[in-house]
Amino acid sequence: MFEELKHKVWQANQGLFHYKLVALTWGNISGLSADRDFIVIKPSGVSYDELKPDDLVVVDWDGKKVEGHLSPSSDTPIHLEIYKAFNGLFGVAHTHSVYATMFAQANLSIPCLGTTHADHFCGDVPVTRMITEEEVNSGYEVNTGKVIVERFVKLDPLKMPAVLVVGHGAFTWGCSPQEALFNSVALENVAKMAFGAVLLRPDGIPFPDYLLRKHFLRKHGSDAYYGQKKTGDKQ
Amino acid sequence: MFEELKHKVWQANQGLFHYKLVALTWGNISGLSADRDFIVIKPSGVSYDELKPDDLVVVDWDGKKVEGHLSPSSDTPIHLEIYKAFNGLFGVAHTHSVYATMFAQANLSIPCLGTTHADHFCGDVPVTRMITEEEVNSGYEVNTGKVIVERFVKLDPLKMPAVLVVGHGAFTWGCSPQEALFNSVALENVAKMAFGAVLLRPDGIPFPDYLLRKHFLRKHGSDAYYGQKKTGDKQ
Amino acid sequence: MFEELKHKVWQANQGLFHYKLVALTWGNISGLSADRDFIVIKPSGVSYDELKPDDLVVVDWDGKKVEGHLSPSSDTPIHLEIYKAFNGLFGVAHTHSVYATMFAQANLSIPCLGTTHADHFCGDVPVTRMITEEEVNSGYEVNTGKVIVERFVKLDPLKMPAVLVVGHGAFTWGCSPQEALFNSVALENVAKMAFGAVLLRPDGIPFPDYLLRKHFLRKHGSDAYYGQKKTGDKQ
Amino acid sequence: MFEELKHKVWQANQGLFHYKLVALTWGNISGLSADRDFIVIKPSGVSYDELKPDDLVVVDWDGKKVEGHLSPSSDTPIHLEIYKAFNGLFGVAHTHSVYATMFAQANLSIPCLGTTHADHFCGDVPVTRMITEEEVNSGYEVNTGKVIVERFVKLDPLKMPAVLVVGHGAFTWGCSPQEALFNSVALENVAKMAFGAVLLRPDGIPFPDYLLRKHFLRKHGSDAYYGQKKTGDKQ
Repeated sequence: MFEELKHKVWQANQGLFHYKLVALTWGNISGLSADRDFIVIKPSGVSYDELKPDDLVVVDWDGKKVEGHLSPSSDTPIHLEIYKAFNGLFGVAHTHSVYATMFAQANLSIPCLGTTHADHFCGDVPVTRMITEEEVNSGYEVNTGKVIVERFVKLDPLKMPAVLVVGHGAFTWGCSPQEALFNSVALENVAKMAFGAVLLRPDGIPFPDYLLRKHFLRKHGSDAYYGQKKTGDKQ
Repeated sequence: MFEELKHKVWQANQGLFHYKLVALTWGNISGLSADRDFIVIKPSGVSYDELKPDDLVVVDWDGKKVEGHLSPSSDTPIHLEIYKAFNGLFGVAHTHSVYATMFAQANLSIPCLGTTHADHFCGDVPVTRMITEEEVNSGYEVNTGKVIVERFVKLDPLKMPAVLVVGHGAFTWGCSPQEALFNSVALENVAKMAFGAVLLRPDGIPFPDYLLRKHFLRKHGSDAYYGQKKTGDKQ
Repeated sequence: MFEELKHKVWQANQGLFHYKLVALTWGNISGLSADRDFIVIKPSGVSYDELKPDDLVVVDWDGKKVEGHLSPSSDTPIHLEIYKAFNGLFGVAHTHSVYATMFAQANLSIPCLGTTHADHFCGDVPVTRMITEEEVNSGYEVNTGKVIVERFVKLDPLKMPAVLVVGHGAFTWGCSPQEALFNSVALENVAKMAFGAVLLRPDGIPFPDYLLRKHFLRKHGSDAYYGQKKTGDKQ
Repeated sequence: MFEELKHKVWQANQGLFHYKLVALTWGNISGLSADRDFIVIKPSGVSYDELKPDDLVVVDWDGKKVEGHLSPSSDTPIHLEIYKAFNGLFGVAHTHSVYATMFAQANLSIPCLGTTHADHFCGDVPVTRMITEEEVNSGYEVNTGKVIVERFVKLDPLKMPAVLVVGHGAFTWGCSPQEALFNSVALENVAKMAFGAVLLRPDGIPFPDYLLRKHFLRKHGSDAYYGQKKTGDKQ
């Protein structure tokens, strides 16, 4: 079942490799079924060039495998926590893309320094607190998900479709597996731009809030005028 | 109409992707018709691998669509302001190429530190002032174009075929869509070289003006002797 | 003889090029036969696109050529020292991959700053002491091997399958030529991530030991649950 | 005439593009005929994907075109000065490769910090003095060649097959067009490694002279034992 969703999730996972966001098997994308009953996710540790649509794994909200001949990604509980807490998502992506991970390792949010950033993320991309030893021991992956959700108490996940997990990597999401992928592409690019800008200007760079909001709202929301008339999950 | 120009503009837009100057749909190139009556430009938000020559949009000097089944780039008014103010241009390119954008985000011009730069840009590549909130609210794109033009009051756009829009990205231009593209390629490369040179030598690097002028004039102007005898828009 | 092993070693050497870990002929991978009697290694100075499985060289534990029409890598004695000292290895890789070599040249270990690192290397990747002039003159390559082994007196090579040779480059290893290759891929990526994180945060970055151990043991050891059930040398 | 040499020079110029050492048309390689009577060089301003072996230009020692339907590279006089002053060369390459050019723009030699460097260049890669305004005006290209030669008064060009021209770019050479190309590949890689190492360790990094000499002599000179028995211009 879910052949179409499997194909979309497979294609988005191929995109991780195509856009050079992953080395080896370091990333995974999932998708939520239209009826919101099941999640389709990459199997654990399978390389992208060997991955076939039929290898994708279907799990329920408890993470129990419903269909598939392989084990799901060990990060599945993180994806589940994100879908549970953030309404309106149909795709979640996880990468260790190089420049985003530099910021995650440095325990720094990615500052919004330009319109490229503002086109996708409405503000600085937040970084979580460090997970505690107790949380690691009592369910590492599910607690990683909870730490992400905790970070968004005062944030709107639809306006900020990305997070850095400190000392780990990035998660992004969207209204489809493809949009989750595209937000990972955007995140890596704005991370690289911010990295260079910060090295050129270590004393800090102002970026006016009115320009941030203008660019985000030009592409998102009811008055958006960037792109063509809505055609499903095309960005 | 304008099948030939559409093809050239389409090819130049493909070049944005080929030369790795854009991620996703973050860039666009336009071309002015030989009779200077119409502008052909990339449609908004269409990815380069799906773009066909027939998707290109023809607009008049008011930005009104004259031909095409898609909406033109939301940056069209910026292109129009540039064509209006700078005589002799037949192509304009806009990118968020990574290293050029680092300088734009850092509110720094790209210093001319070598002959690679001087071969294409006769001096430091300028950065605009920040657009005001009022300008954003009263026509963001057209005012972005005006801010660019304002920056060139004392500059010759034919000797300096590039500008950084602070907190945003780069625009380049030329006597054809292809030359606009090539100037974007050159800009990204000299931005990367300058980035590294500045990190190696944060105290500043001298580059003599006589060498700058020699290299620029070796390739441009009436006494140029670089390249083969003129063959249209080939660089 | 050893056609299958030659093919595996050939494939792993091609991977050095495929994963952009080498320029020109700057790297080599070897494999140990299942009976632990012979080592198959890349010939010296042959480019990857010209290398054929039949060009691989078989040597014994004294480095004497047993089969092959070409001379073995000049680094063969280093490989041999590593196989002799570290039990359980069936593949060794040597690269001058760019970011790992930056750390080797700077005489710095690669600090463990995140889970990407901890997934592969259980702690900071160590750097050797500088080889002495006497050691260079009395058998440069064999002594380079001994300097590597010396560095592991208090380290478990199965938990730390990589080393930086100061002023030189990197060696990695594993239970197959392919795993040695994959550890070189991982090393280069974590080196790049650490490089950027260190530039963003020159004052040092903490990474908790409990998270390091959690991630390493999630992928390695008897309680590992990352990936699919063991299928030979697949990572 | 010189069909074979033209093919070799053409192939080496294609390599500039293949190894990502050039953008647009920013580089050129020449070869000297076996009888040392003629130089074959890339035509000026022709892009690599359009270049055909038959487009290569043959010039004599005065730079006069002897054969070819296009104008030779405007850098031809620089190549000629190098061939005239340095005995034993049969290939010269010129690039603006990004990391080598960063050092040239920063007016810094590329420090020898490791064996990758020492395998190809016997010491720090030197940078020239700045050309004077008078030299620019009285024959820019020929004087650039003379400035390079002047820098080698106390250096052996066969042990140091590369130079940085301050504020400009790099020249490399060798016993064939291919070796000149390979030295450009090596130069760009060691420049990138040095760039990163210097950022990680701005206070300076020691590299012992005995290891430098060991590595250079392992690959070059009468006692070299790296690679296979000599087979012409294969590295």
